[in-house]
Amino acid sequence: MENLLNNIIKLNKKYTNFGQVASYIPELKNANSEDLGICIIDKDNNIHYAGDYKKKFTIQSVSKTIILAMALMDNDWSYVFSKVGMEPSGDPFNSIMKLETDDTKKPCNPMINAGAIVTTSLIKGTTLKEKEERMLAFFRKIAKNDDIKINQAVYESEKLTGDRNRAMAYLLKNDGVINGDVEEILDLYFKQCSIEVDCVDLARIGLLFANYGIDIETGERVISENVSRMVKTFMVTCGMYDASGEFAIKVGIPAKSGVGGGIMASVPRKMGIGVYGPSLDKKGNSIAGIKILEDLSKQLELSIF
Amino acid sequence: MENLLNNIIKLNKKYTNFGQVASYIPELKNANSEDLGICIIDKDNNIHYAGDYKKKFTIQSVSKTIILAMALMDNDWSYVFSKVGMEPSGDPFNSIMKLETDDTKKPCNPMINAGAIVTTSLIKGTTLKEKEERMLAFFRKIAKNDDIKINQAVYESEKLTGDRNRAMAYLLKNDGVINGDVEEILDLYFKQCSIEVDCVDLARIGLLFANYGIDIETGERVISENVSRMVKTFMVTCGMYDASGEFAIKVGIPAKSGVGGGIMASVPRKMGIGVYGPSLDKKGNSIAGIKILEDLSKQLELSIF
Amino acid sequence: MENLLNNIIKLNKKYTNFGQVASYIPELKNANSEDLGICIIDKDNNIHYAGDYKKKFTIQSVSKTIILAMALMDNDWSYVFSKVGMEPSGDPFNSIMKLETDDTKKPCNPMINAGAIVTTSLIKGTTLKEKEERMLAFFRKIAKNDDIKINQAVYESEKLTGDRNRAMAYLLKNDGVINGDVEEILDLYFKQCSIEVDCVDLARIGLLFANYGIDIETGERVISENVSRMVKTFMVTCGMYDASGEFAIKVGIPAKSGVGGGIMASVPRKMGIGVYGPSLDKKGNSIAGIKILEDLSKQLELSIF
Amino acid sequence: MENLLNNIIKLNKKYTNFGQVASYIPELKNANSEDLGICIIDKDNNIHYAGDYKKKFTIQSVSKTIILAMALMDNDWSYVFSKVGMEPSGDPFNSIMKLETDDTKKPCNPMINAGAIVTTSLIKGTTLKEKEERMLAFFRKIAKNDDIKINQAVYESEKLTGDRNRAMAYLLKNDGVINGDVEEILDLYFKQCSIEVDCVDLARIGLLFANYGIDIETGERVISENVSRMVKTFMVTCGMYDASGEFAIKVGIPAKSGVGGGIMASVPRKMGIGVYGPSLDKKGNSIAGIKILEDLSKQLELSIF
Repeated sequence: MENLLNNIIKLNKKYTNFGQVASYIPELKNANSEDLGICIIDKDNNIHYAGDYKKKFTIQSVSKTIILAMALMDNDWSYVFSKVGMEPSGDPFNSIMKLETDDTKKPCNPMINAGAIVTTSLIKGTTLKEKEERMLAFFRKIAKNDDIKINQAVYESEKLTGDRNRAMAYLLKNDGVINGDVEEILDLYFKQCSIEVDCVDLARIGLLFANYGIDIETGERVISENVSRMVKTFMVTCGMYDASGEFAIKVGIPAKSGVGGGIMASVPRKMGIGVYGPSLDKKGNSIAGIKILEDLSKQLELSIF
Repeated sequence: MENLLNNIIKLNKKYTNFGQVASYIPELKNANSEDLGICIIDKDNNIHYAGDYKKKFTIQSVSKTIILAMALMDNDWSYVFSKVGMEPSGDPFNSIMKLETDDTKKPCNPMINAGAIVTTSLIKGTTLKEKEERMLAFFRKIAKNDDIKINQAVYESEKLTGDRNRAMAYLLKNDGVINGDVEEILDLYFKQCSIEVDCVDLARIGLLFANYGIDIETGERVISENVSRMVKTFMVTCGMYDASGEFAIKVGIPAKSGVGGGIMASVPRKMGIGVYGPSLDKKGNSIAGIKILEDLSKQLELSIF
Repeated sequence: MENLLNNIIKLNKKYTNFGQVASYIPELKNANSEDLGICIIDKDNNIHYAGDYKKKFTIQSVSKTIILAMALMDNDWSYVFSKVGMEPSGDPFNSIMKLETDDTKKPCNPMINAGAIVTTSLIKGTTLKEKEERMLAFFRKIAKNDDIKINQAVYESEKLTGDRNRAMAYLLKNDGVINGDVEEILDLYFKQCSIEVDCVDLARIGLLFANYGIDIETGERVISENVSRMVKTFMVTCGMYDASGEFAIKVGIPAKSGVGGGIMASVPRKMGIGVYGPSLDKKGNSIAGIKILEDLSKQLELSIF
Repeated sequence: MENLLNNIIKLNKKYTNFGQVASYIPELKNANSEDLGICIIDKDNNIHYAGDYKKKFTIQSVSKTIILAMALMDNDWSYVFSKVGMEPSGDPFNSIMKLETDDTKKPCNPMINAGAIVTTSLIKGTTLKEKEERMLAFFRKIAKNDDIKINQAVYESEKLTGDRNRAMAYLLKNDGVINGDVEEILDLYFKQCSIEVDCVDLARIGLLFANYGIDIETGERVISENVSRMVKTFMVTCGMYDASGEFAIKVGIPAKSGVGGGIMASVPRKMGIGVYGPSLDKKGNSIAGIKILEDLSKQLELSIF
């Protein structure tokens, strides 16, 4: 397996040249565009890795899966889905248009920015501090890593330059889709995006969803079976921005990407996968990361279809 | 003339029943939906009025014409039109969609909310206070009425409930169309909308534009000929929200409406007209006010076409 | 199993009252809105059925999966996907808008009307007659039913009233996405929609896709593994119109619906399912059919996620 | 006056280098991109010209004004405007999108292609032949030129390559906005676009609208005052495609352009103007033609605002 992974990394390294690291905030621009790493943890708790699997990066949109899980654990599902839809949008992740043309005014799904702002607004807690602590505690628990923390510099940059997300949030507030203080909700949203992880963390979380919410080591049920299944389903239909359809065809694994360069994949009943490659394609997905997962899916026959 | 006006008011009063007063803020809801008034000041400075011409109301979107004039007087025109377009949008006044789909990212024109937020951002002044004072001074000068002031309750309501405008402003900021502090720009925007006027004020301002910027009484040039012409042109192509085309066909007079119920009309070389009727049609225009102007245009042959 | 199916039919019958049969052509309006039937064929070739499983209906959009398979067998995949995309559209099945706003001009995916017109245009044959015969032969082969034929009355109605599809086709022609005679392509498209099937036919075809293209009885490879997988993937991401996301969450089975009331479902490695219920929800899916599949998925644990 | 015109032509000739002749059909591509001509006929029937004013070209979209006039003369206005709107669209002339998103399904206005297809469908006549003859007779009458005829080669090219217009027409048919045979309506539409004129013809027609429908020479009322006014109003709000707003600001004269390079302008109570310059800007308007009208408007003070 280590050979296989090393090989796949080597073969796909060249694709890092065809993309670009995210540039909307300076901190992300500092990433090394040639970095490429992978970690797999299988259902027997074997761990395999290759390349820059230890490099830390901010989780960015991968967090949308986890916040969705929290929102579904904190609220009635019918309430959650009265505020955010279940459909792929066909539009870029930061599109505002559908919010305006759709009669329901609710974001298409929880994997686009507007939808994740909604699920963030549904995290329980009496204060922003409490919500933040609950969120961090949950990330640490499901990644089984108590060292996970927020990258302060990235968080501050996100906050400073987040006017497009701010625009969405005010529109959602105006339409009654989110309630409460917009800047507080955005603060939690920017913090969630700025959580620092590595490939091992993502593989561990991916495995938990793959194993339907039961901790493989302790047998503890951490997330319900239904919530685990829902999250994986959203990963397939909307996880790779407006390239989700193509990813499903070519790879066929539930996965969620972030502009930090991370991809978390979750192969039902089989394994969790964490990939890191900050060089992004035009849709915002790790350009070499997708290629790695495509090769892996073919060689290990991981497609769910 | 007084007979004519009284008659037109009487004949069109019934239309006030077919509309509704603006309801997005409580203060506007308190308007008496049956109010209907008109004032005309002609090029020989004769003043004629009928109905509720003395009732005060907030100027709302009618102010967009005046702020445009200020922005054009405060800046190079090429700079202004690098930030806001000259085209009718075909969309409702508070639409966000075109900001996203249009490659230029700039609002279609200065008569829709997004465009007026841009022109507001172009008003000169070192502090918000200074900008506000310059703005108020200009309104007072062109209306020749030193008592003009901001309705504080309406202003505070606008500010409290203005999340849709806030969303637009943050999107404009994100796209580099406006610079500076968003909340400060919005503050000036909400204040401009909350300026209290009556039909006489609107007729006086309309006359100034009709007279190409020269004060009819003193002969003073207050606004340049070109700016006056531009403002009237925008009134024709975009002044009545997405009913501007129909208004041009049926009435044919440069005019700008506001959801407070006011309409300012400006008949080139002939007269300024102020109308008040807070009962609005679905597009946000004074429902009886439009009918009054239609009758007036036919009887006095005021169409510019 | 028969008990289970009978029970599920009985329990969900009531939902037929909450929908409506398709009305855009008279022939579809004649369907009995209370009809409800199901047929399952499992990987051991056991066949189970309940309700109105023998009723005939036109296949309508279910055919899009089969035409896609043919197009992929008749052409280079890269050529096919240069003409039609892989992404869910987020819009209704007969939307034209995205054709205009999307830079590529190609339809989002082969499961919406515009996309299926494209795949239809890619069916090989020197004459329309030959294409039609190849198409019918393929449908008969994969359904293992030589009696399958076109419902002439429905076909003629489709052709007569198909101006929206005609509009799409001419736009695709204009943009160079389809080549050749538009009316001829549409003729084949309308014919494919008018093929008459029953639940057994759909279950048989669904089983073929579930079994990765190998005939369960003869062991013959009819469709390649990759094409079978692709078709199932499109069924998940785009198979239930703009309710595909919700169906994936609630049911989690590759499925394709048609406005004739049919749904073909394909559970990888397990079974093919044919459902018939002409009472449709607002998105155009069999309203009780979806409920049946939801119950079935839960009770037999069929979700792929 | 001749000096003035010659001068303006000379000064603006250079702009012909910055545009391109229409290329969607070969016949239009053959135009000489440097051609530039103008003809003015004033209210005292004085005729002035300069440059290539005698060159013949196809009228293209300028015909939309005349077909609108015919539709308004052939039908109740309320019926006409139940089928086509009065609002600028903010979109390119051949946009389909608004037809889909607008609830009314009717084209925004009669100056865009979709709207002109509607007005064409409203021309009276028992046969296509009769409609065509009535149309030609009307063009000849208002241009006072019996030699006006259809350019057969352009007409055939339009018909052959008109799939985008065909798409619009089928969508309009599908939505019940137009009735009757689509290809017949399109035939009349393509013929109207292919009528050959020169600058004198356009100046003559422009003068008729400027003079409120009364023939300046004979005193005959050819078009009603109200129809003349309506046509001029549409010319201002929608006559120069999605550059109408800018043209109104910079020129301020009712005008309608065509991709053949012609512009017909109509200065109320003063003059008709015909301009020809086949080099087009990106919006489809004669690039030097607009400049000529801008200079002319300033020097002769022709703006209506």
